[in-house]
Amino acid sequence: MERVNPLAQAVYSVVLTRRDVRSQFTGEPIDPQVLGRILQGAHSAPSVGMSQPWDFILVDDVGQRETFRDHVLSERQIFLESLDPTRRETFLGIRIEGILESSLGIVVTYDPSRGSPAVLGRHAIADAGLYSVCLAIENLWLCAQAESIGVGWVSFYREEFLAELVGLPAGVRPVAWLCIGPVSHFEATPDLERLNWQSRRPILPHVARGRYGEHDGLFDIVTLPQ
Amino acid sequence: MERVNPLAQAVYSVVLTRRDVRSQFTGEPIDPQVLGRILQGAHSAPSVGMSQPWDFILVDDVGQRETFRDHVLSERQIFLESLDPTRRETFLGIRIEGILESSLGIVVTYDPSRGSPAVLGRHAIADAGLYSVCLAIENLWLCAQAESIGVGWVSFYREEFLAELVGLPAGVRPVAWLCIGPVSHFEATPDLERLNWQSRRPILPHVARGRYGEHDGLFDIVTLPQ
Repeated sequence: MERVNPLAQAVYSVVLTRRDVRSQFTGEPIDPQVLGRILQGAHSAPSVGMSQPWDFILVDDVGQRETFRDHVLSERQIFLESLDPTRRETFLGIRIEGILESSLGIVVTYDPSRGSPAVLGRHAIADAGLYSVCLAIENLWLCAQAESIGVGWVSFYREEFLAELVGLPAGVRPVAWLCIGPVSHFEATPDLERLNWQSRRPILPHVARGRYGEHDGLFDIVTLPQ
Repeated sequence: MERVNPLAQAVYSVVLTRRDVRSQFTGEPIDPQVLGRILQGAHSAPSVGMSQPWDFILVDDVGQRETFRDHVLSERQIFLESLDPTRRETFLGIRIEGILESSLGIVVTYDPSRGSPAVLGRHAIADAGLYSVCLAIENLWLCAQAESIGVGWVSFYREEFLAELVGLPAGVRPVAWLCIGPVSHFEATPDLERLNWQSRRPILPHVARGRYGEHDGLFDIVTLPQ
């Protein structure tokens, strides 16, 4: 990447080296200053009507994490049983969580009542609030990566189980359990590609001009690998 | 922010200066190389089961953009009429879109069939695919900011209207219309705060330890402004 400004160079390098970590957590504590900065980065994300509808619940208690891990492993089993024999064998080699090995779990939640009744930009699209929470999660992830802290998003759980575990009020919805902490290293290739589950797709089929799937004139306005 | 490594320093500066742009677009074309890099940044986002369930439709046609803007302005009117008189006056001073002034619209979509039937990590949480698309949008936004390109997310529209406008196949859902392009400058303060709609919230009430709203022992593990 030549002719790219240094700021952009830094952001692209973080975006491209970011991994979804399962197996490389060291379990060392996160420096409280570093964790504070990462959470501030998340809290600075854009949100619909500036509602900032997220909360971050830090879960370090081992018992609480064990309870969650047992639940996640039972959901892993359910998914495993849904697979055909070939995929099942591939899946058996894949770790899906680092709940106990990471330093901390962070449960990120969505509160639709934040900023209500009239959230600017949400009257036509109810999910816009949920989208905001995801933007905060990606900010968190990239800030952590820039601090050499690993993050792994676990989604093998039932929302009602996690809501109960961390005492969410009625109406507040869990969006993610993030495993977070120092790591021994970041893998060069994403786990799911390295372990033959799914390869990354080329971008070209997924960019169009004017209409879905339309490539006419696309290269007049964008340079992409062909 | 002392003692922060240069990479993190760069990422935080982009995260903190990023704005949701409506009024500062110059309308100049985006360098095709720059646009290509920004889209690659988006396409490098994490996704559930590495499904990468997004598409990016670049809309530069003025007629198509005018049609969308008319629809957005009619939705703006609907929202306006839902407000009480005080809020209505504040809202009248707020621009909600830069559809024609920006260089380009980017419609970001979600295809639930990508990687189906067995998307790893989605069996228990159907919305996980939608979450992935939002992570790609935040990558796009931060990469653009690092390239000094402005982005504004418009959400005053009905999904079926936008789906029809850009010819989405059945089942594919629009997640965002992003206005994107060079800008005259980035405002220091978010529009909605500057124009008295909504102030940014302090982070402390939104971080807890172990259970929602619980602050006991929080400062043993994280440093936050009190």
